[in-house]
Amino acid sequence: ANVLGFAAVATTRSIATETLRPLDSFERRHNSATKEEEIEMAKYVGFDSMDALVDATVPTDIRRAGEMDMGEWTSPLSESEYLARFKAMASKNKVFKSYQGTGYYGTHVPPVILRNVLENPGWYTQYTPYQAEISQGRLESLLNYQTMISDLTGLPMANASLLDEGTAAAEAMTMCSAMNRGKKPKFLISDKCHPQTIAVCETRADGLGLEVVVAAESDFDYASNDVCGILLQYPATDGAVIDYSPVVEKAHAAGAKVVAAADLLALTVLRPPGEWKADICIGSAQRFGVPMGFGGPHAGYLATSHEYKRLMPGRIIGVSVDAQGEPALRMAMQTREQHIRRDKATSNICTAQALLANMAGLYAVYHGPEGLKNIADKTHALASIFAAGAKKLGFTPPTDPFFDTVSLGCPNGADAAVEACRAKGINIRKLDASRVAASFDETTTPADVDDLFAAMNGGKAPDFSVASLAGGVSPAIAPGHGLERTSPYLTHPVFNAYHSEHEMVRYLARLEQKDLSLVHSMIALGSCTMKLNSTTEMMPVTWPELANIHPFAPKEQTQGYQELFDALTEQLVEITGFDGMSLQPNSGASGEYAGLMAIRAYHQSRGDHHRNVCIIPVSAHGTNPASAAMVGYKIVVVGTDEAGNINIPELKAAAEKHKDNLAALMVTYPSTHGVYEDGIKDVCDTIHKYGGQVYMDGANMNAQVGLTSPGFIGADVCHLNLHKTFCIPHGGGGPGMGPIGVKKQLMPFMPNHPSAELDGAIVAGGETPFGVVSAAPYGSALILPISFGYIAMMGSKGLTNASKRAILNANYMAKRLEDHYPVLFKGKNGTCAHEFILDLRPLGDSSGVVVEDVAKRLMDYGYHSPTMSWPVSGTLMIEPTESESKAELDRFCNAMIAIREEIRDIENGAMDRENNPLKHAPHTASVVMGDEWDRPYSRETAAFPAPWVRASKFWPTNSRVDNVYGDRNLVTTHASVEVSAEETA
Amino acid sequence: ANVLGFAAVATTRSIATETLRPLDSFERRHNSATKEEEIEMAKYVGFDSMDALVDATVPTDIRRAGEMDMGEWTSPLSESEYLARFKAMASKNKVFKSYQGTGYYGTHVPPVILRNVLENPGWYTQYTPYQAEISQGRLESLLNYQTMISDLTGLPMANASLLDEGTAAAEAMTMCSAMNRGKKPKFLISDKCHPQTIAVCETRADGLGLEVVVAAESDFDYASNDVCGILLQYPATDGAVIDYSPVVEKAHAAGAKVVAAADLLALTVLRPPGEWKADICIGSAQRFGVPMGFGGPHAGYLATSHEYKRLMPGRIIGVSVDAQGEPALRMAMQTREQHIRRDKATSNICTAQALLANMAGLYAVYHGPEGLKNIADKTHALASIFAAGAKKLGFTPPTDPFFDTVSLGCPNGADAAVEACRAKGINIRKLDASRVAASFDETTTPADVDDLFAAMNGGKAPDFSVASLAGGVSPAIAPGHGLERTSPYLTHPVFNAYHSEHEMVRYLARLEQKDLSLVHSMIALGSCTMKLNSTTEMMPVTWPELANIHPFAPKEQTQGYQELFDALTEQLVEITGFDGMSLQPNSGASGEYAGLMAIRAYHQSRGDHHRNVCIIPVSAHGTNPASAAMVGYKIVVVGTDEAGNINIPELKAAAEKHKDNLAALMVTYPSTHGVYEDGIKDVCDTIHKYGGQVYMDGANMNAQVGLTSPGFIGADVCHLNLHKTFCIPHGGGGPGMGPIGVKKQLMPFMPNHPSAELDGAIVAGGETPFGVVSAAPYGSALILPISFGYIAMMGSKGLTNASKRAILNANYMAKRLEDHYPVLFKGKNGTCAHEFILDLRPLGDSSGVVVEDVAKRLMDYGYHSPTMSWPVSGTLMIEPTESESKAELDRFCNAMIAIREEIRDIENGAMDRENNPLKHAPHTASVVMGDEWDRPYSRETAAFPAPWVRASKFWPTNSRVDNVYGDRNLVTTHASVEVSAEETA
Ligand SMILES: Cc1ncc(COP(=O)(O)O)c(C=O)c1O
Ligand SMILES: Cc1ncc(COP(=O)(O)O)c(C=O)c1O
Ligand SMILES: O=C([O-])O
Repeated sequence: ANVLGFAAVATTRSIATETLRPLDSFERRHNSATKEEEIEMAKYVGFDSMDALVDATVPTDIRRAGEMDMGEWTSPLSESEYLARFKAMASKNKVFKSYQGTGYYGTHVPPVILRNVLENPGWYTQYTPYQAEISQGRLESLLNYQTMISDLTGLPMANASLLDEGTAAAEAMTMCSAMNRGKKPKFLISDKCHPQTIAVCETRADGLGLEVVVAAESDFDYASNDVCGILLQYPATDGAVIDYSPVVEKAHAAGAKVVAAADLLALTVLRPPGEWKADICIGSAQRFGVPMGFGGPHAGYLATSHEYKRLMPGRIIGVSVDAQGEPALRMAMQTREQHIRRDKATSNICTAQALLANMAGLYAVYHGPEGLKNIADKTHALASIFAAGAKKLGFTPPTDPFFDTVSLGCPNGADAAVEACRAKGINIRKLDASRVAASFDETTTPADVDDLFAAMNGGKAPDFSVASLAGGVSPAIAPGHGLERTSPYLTHPVFNAYHSEHEMVRYLARLEQKDLSLVHSMIALGSCTMKLNSTTEMMPVTWPELANIHPFAPKEQTQGYQELFDALTEQLVEITGFDGMSLQPNSGASGEYAGLMAIRAYHQSRGDHHRNVCIIPVSAHGTNPASAAMVGYKIVVVGTDEAGNINIPELKAAAEKHKDNLAALMVTYPSTHGVYEDGIKDVCDTIHKYGGQVYMDGANMNAQVGLTSPGFIGADVCHLNLHKTFCIPHGGGGPGMGPIGVKKQLMPFMPNHPSAELDGAIVAGGETPFGVVSAAPYGSALILPISFGYIAMMGSKGLTNASKRAILNANYMAKRLEDHYPVLFKGKNGTCAHEFILDLRPLGDSSGVVVEDVAKRLMDYGYHSPTMSWPVSGTLMIEPTESESKAELDRFCNAMIAIREEIRDIENGAMDRENNPLKHAPHTASVVMGDEWDRPYSRETAAFPAPWVRASKFWPTNSRVDNVYGDRNLVTTHASVEVSAEETA
Repeated sequence: ANVLGFAAVATTRSIATETLRPLDSFERRHNSATKEEEIEMAKYVGFDSMDALVDATVPTDIRRAGEMDMGEWTSPLSESEYLARFKAMASKNKVFKSYQGTGYYGTHVPPVILRNVLENPGWYTQYTPYQAEISQGRLESLLNYQTMISDLTGLPMANASLLDEGTAAAEAMTMCSAMNRGKKPKFLISDKCHPQTIAVCETRADGLGLEVVVAAESDFDYASNDVCGILLQYPATDGAVIDYSPVVEKAHAAGAKVVAAADLLALTVLRPPGEWKADICIGSAQRFGVPMGFGGPHAGYLATSHEYKRLMPGRIIGVSVDAQGEPALRMAMQTREQHIRRDKATSNICTAQALLANMAGLYAVYHGPEGLKNIADKTHALASIFAAGAKKLGFTPPTDPFFDTVSLGCPNGADAAVEACRAKGINIRKLDASRVAASFDETTTPADVDDLFAAMNGGKAPDFSVASLAGGVSPAIAPGHGLERTSPYLTHPVFNAYHSEHEMVRYLARLEQKDLSLVHSMIALGSCTMKLNSTTEMMPVTWPELANIHPFAPKEQTQGYQELFDALTEQLVEITGFDGMSLQPNSGASGEYAGLMAIRAYHQSRGDHHRNVCIIPVSAHGTNPASAAMVGYKIVVVGTDEAGNINIPELKAAAEKHKDNLAALMVTYPSTHGVYEDGIKDVCDTIHKYGGQVYMDGANMNAQVGLTSPGFIGADVCHLNLHKTFCIPHGGGGPGMGPIGVKKQLMPFMPNHPSAELDGAIVAGGETPFGVVSAAPYGSALILPISFGYIAMMGSKGLTNASKRAILNANYMAKRLEDHYPVLFKGKNGTCAHEFILDLRPLGDSSGVVVEDVAKRLMDYGYHSPTMSWPVSGTLMIEPTESESKAELDRFCNAMIAIREEIRDIENGAMDRENNPLKHAPHTASVVMGDEWDRPYSRETAAFPAPWVRASKFWPTNSRVDNVYGDRNLVTTHASVEVSAEETA
């Protein structure tokens, strides 16, 4: 008898080995359409197949020849294979007990926040809250965050996060320069600031033409009358709590502004910088419940007084009203920002750290003022006991008061102490040859400190312990000491109501429910690539062996990260066609800046210090000119032709005209108009011919992967928005990562980081680096696994298919919609790239409807608007991505078509031009349920305009929000009643 | 200078060691009210303090003297301490690659389901969907599950889960007996059934007075004409796929019913039992994406034909219509169930396995029919290759066809093969002295099978591999073989639409959005203790070192679980005042059954076979009489007095009357009326005096912990609903755990399990066990950490405070509500226990309002109804638990009071008796938004009756659901059009 299963009666067959592969394959979960739908859609747009469409769309001269060869990552891993493989890799990290401090501390992420925010797609897949009416949850949460920053720093106005503490300091420096109208080029930095903060400021100053002087703050010299500002660390990097009042007085007397880099936890017990007259306060909210994550992502913060609101970088949440007069939140004073003011913007910040700011704000909500104070007191008490014990062990304790960080003179030198601790699984910080420091935090226990004593006592427990010492140590920041905090903080009810887990989980649920995210429907935002952020990609983000590592941990402990960076670099180098990568920039804009700094350093290395002209097409994203401004480049704008393509003759003429000083071209490909322009290679050649370098903006990389590459096209450097093409979720406005790929000639200039030398941490910078762009050596390292996992699970073919599907989906939608709204730009064969623009301007005349009306009306249909009025005012730019099914594309198109019919009713007079469902959109439940209804359309039309809406309605929280009112009456915290009567134009 | 922090200027103080404890303490997160609120509430109810209230409430003679001493668990651990401590404990489990099969298999939990269902409080904190209008999400999901079971088994009607495969078989046995009107006591079980299934049936038969005969199915003997049914395993436990048609024919000819225990994955490729005429099909849905978890929780399933619908155990979801004529789901034919039919019910099942049934159904939704078939084919292919390779290694392959499980004759005996594998981190199953078996599953990879070859080849790789063998092996279940499946399955669109992750995550979000859970508001269900299910408690449930362990893994590999069981037992023994525990029963009802079986065994051990009278108060939960019926007890019901207390004279009289045959009293304490009855000790003494044992129903344990205990009161045995008092979330109707505590005399009879002997697994049964009650030795072991963590993080004092707070909260609410609705029963000092009953019957006359109207109207206010009409018809029983803040209690009371005002409008004629907001409740968005509105109250009154509702509205999906219609027109699957025209009364 044949014993093999059913084979007894089977005709003899054999088993194909491929059929034994794991079946939890990822590509089909990510690339949503089925094969049948793919063919149907291709036919619909007039091609026999998806490949035929792609061949007609992507110019032949830039098509990649073969498949991508990503080495061992070429074939896809299944979801379970990936998790097992990456678990093994991550396990090579060694999680030591960390006392390294320097801006990064252990913290307990409250499990209720971990699970319901950081691990919840309802929160992490949200977009930046531009559409305020369907974003009130995170807007409230960000207002909590701003209120917390404002309360703790003692400065009335905070923004909704910056990228990290280092860049926040650099932004503050820029502000100081602007406060002095750019007339004072010198910025003084205390040598007691964190080394990475100093390094980031020095780099930034270089580009901006400012001069940084690092010195003891007591030696600050204002004699030359050219100091725009000073930076002080509070407490100092070595832990010292210093009364900076005399320093501040001197600075102010000299007309210099004062920036304090302050620790938020310390501010619960120390006099806040606002009270000792700092003009700006910056720092990191990391230790408020956000894991260290080898450096990020975390929210950098910045607070200042209302006086400087027009100079404030980044996004600011403000209070306004809606069409019903109800209070409503939205982003305030956008006129300062790069997307409006371009190279004149206050900063180049676009993606920031919204999700992490939310976590930090929610940490304060959960703990409340007393809870935070208790954490601070306990931290300080353990630090005090440690100092007493260390003294007994022969170490020299600090002479200044301290909060959480104790610096010690070492009897046998710093290295011996560091080594003794490391042998016991403990990291302390080396300050210099003879001094070390240990920073305590929320997670430190008495047992931990006893372990530290033992490590410092040659490996054996001393004859004292925390318990035995405690009674003899004076702990508290004493009443009467000039530095202790006396002012209240976090007095608003939101910080005093949700301290039980039930209250907290329900508060989180109420906020989440107000926010439309990818768990509800597609968010077809052109240029933003809101694709699937899969669970498997996200899972490692909360693994402790990745989350609980200090960014400056010595390299022997971070082999897991090292392997990750190497693997991701291998993948990205092949995908982009470059020779090397820097994983440091933690946003696209930061990548632009880093790339331009690399170009600048390259030119300088060749003696071309004069090359300072940067050509930028008029259609470029606002971050491009804003970044170019940050490296001191002179911007030459070139226009577009009728078809929306870059005007190549104009560009060539500009390049030739500026050939002696040409530094760079910044170009987006496919163009921001959603077209694969012919002639891009020619453009790159021209720039090279005139000695320039080509900076490619990689925002549209999702249309390139596997089909072409920036390197192949001719770019010299390009950033990748990993939070677009490579699946890092948008988080409601960050985190993101913007690593840059570069050609060989730029590799020597890649950014480095002081932690390599000071702490023995891994950093893959170039040999002659231009400087440092992020506070951490690998930016927001904790989220890099998301992109790595995506690439590993898609493999070379899957990634290429994703690009093709993205193009197919866009063309399918364009085709479905073009009879209803004109498609503004198309490529030569009548196709678009992975996104396309609908022109709504003609509707203004015919119906009075403007693009905002359509955007808001989409909410009634359960959809987030596509990108509004960018890159062309009065248009919608639609990018579906490959992750949306045909059913979802059709639903969205049906909504757009139904809205067009509603507009037709206005056009033909059946509906009033002002009193109609578009002008009144969005419709809240309160409005539609109101006892009064006097509109010329029905309640059902208002709320249930399409059948699928009835099956699952997403309710906007507010009616149309009034932006102008909010900017005229600026309120940016919960408590604030301060009102500014004028608009910032 | 004093160098210790700020001490330089501090007056000398010292640090108290307590202040150095971790600050992430749990009790304040769980026991919601603040100290100030506690005092305020105590005063409100007329006491100076919470303790004074408790002293006046709990009878002195049962008050525990000192604090609970739980050994090392007496002092609370902080959240982070607990996680670290338990991580260390759990890490002692060794996760071997498992091929042990026997009903438990590896599976990939789809990450999108893991994160968005199993790790999502929006799903796991739901209650059983009795309130259909706010439960349509999980009702749809359970209908998916029922449809899946029905399609795969080929039987038209499935229930919404049973506890596990073993008990499902026992339920089927009971059905067979009932189908034969109890006249045929014999049940034949094939010796090819899983050992634990046989054991559970044997035990169950014992209690029911049935006789189980285990034999080869070919030897089944019907000569005595007393066989009610037979049980066959498909495929057999050793893997054999047998054509049972001749066996079925013989059984049917003899009037016996046929039960098939079938593997769901196999049914995608094998002819389903319905097609070979089985009457009932049972099994486990574990391998459909639910981790093994050392035995559970998993959904057991049962399907049968419509003919037997009245005999079906457990909950059944059915289709009906709502007041608007819209389709609506709800639980069907509740008249079969214990809460209505008590000892005549089809089973004692109350809590089942809803969450796991949802996961399994969603697994099928995600994979679809093709995906499942691919998994089955791959599993079968690897099994086939394995058999071929094993043969080459000298093992004797099976002679019968097989699907996933390969039995092998071993050249050197079974032990040698098992040991050789174990040495390589692999578990295979020993069938008998000479045979082993290996079961393959979704997670098996070719590399795994190569490892297995190497292990079986003396530890070194043989000269062949899966890859080299594959081409020569005939894999498939061959067309033309009589056993392969030809019929389609899972053809409904729900199984064919959500295969991409975006579609799936949105489907899950849409379902979740329809279901009110604890993330929205308190669910004050009397007797159900819907307290906080904290994140920290839940986190370990998805740790791989707990989730991926086979329940029969040898004890050397499960030390982590062993320590958990020991620690939890230590905690619970002290809490309950008993001498020992059994952790096997996986629901409260199963605990009741186990406890009664222990009592029965105890009496029998003393020769008291005649003792069979069980006294049960009329106010008992339906599971009590239903369980008593299952052990063959004769039930004597005793009434209550006017005050709602057990009528003690009547009880004593009954005990005396039945003293010769008295087996047990079943009593709930505090009573189901929410009162600490005086005289409970006296009652227990009386029972003991007459030779009975006292079974205490532990559902109300939340009012005892730390204040008294069942053991102290005088009970001999008691189950604990860990899913009530000890924080296992309700999961929308399960999982739960119902371990029993017992006094010394009952300990020898505690249940055991065959895996102890057969597999070397850990099982803590007694010396003369009464049998086996669950398929797995520790029931749903994976969720035991939830209770363990709760106790460990609360500590002795925290737990006692929880009981006090629960009492305080109930009394506070009773006081706030008593002027509006009469409180039915109170204790002697005018207080209630942890719950209380509001009497709504008087409203019927005055206003026509019945309890259901109030329950449904509460939905409009954002609340789930309290327990309706139990234990007293026409009432609401309210149990707030300690986890609700005063603000939440007040909101709920305000809703109840506002509704009372609405009723007053009816009473005084201001509102119509039929056309009013209560009779029309709940109000859906569609109704309130309808273009027509002709009701005598406003839309705002309908939808926004209170201010907090406007801030965050929860919308019921349906208007009032018509239960009668659905039972008259029974439809229990998506596809089903079969309609039954009559009601099951
Ligand atoms: C074309 C383009 N360039 C640059 C950026 C800036 O990237 P980031 O937001 O990561 O700073 C964006 C972001 O939307 C973009 O669309
Ligand atoms: C008083 C009482 N006894 C027993 C039970 C049955 O417990 P389980 O649902 O776990 O089977 C319940 C469940 O609600 C109950 O309230
Ligand atoms: O679940 C209950 O039947 O109480």
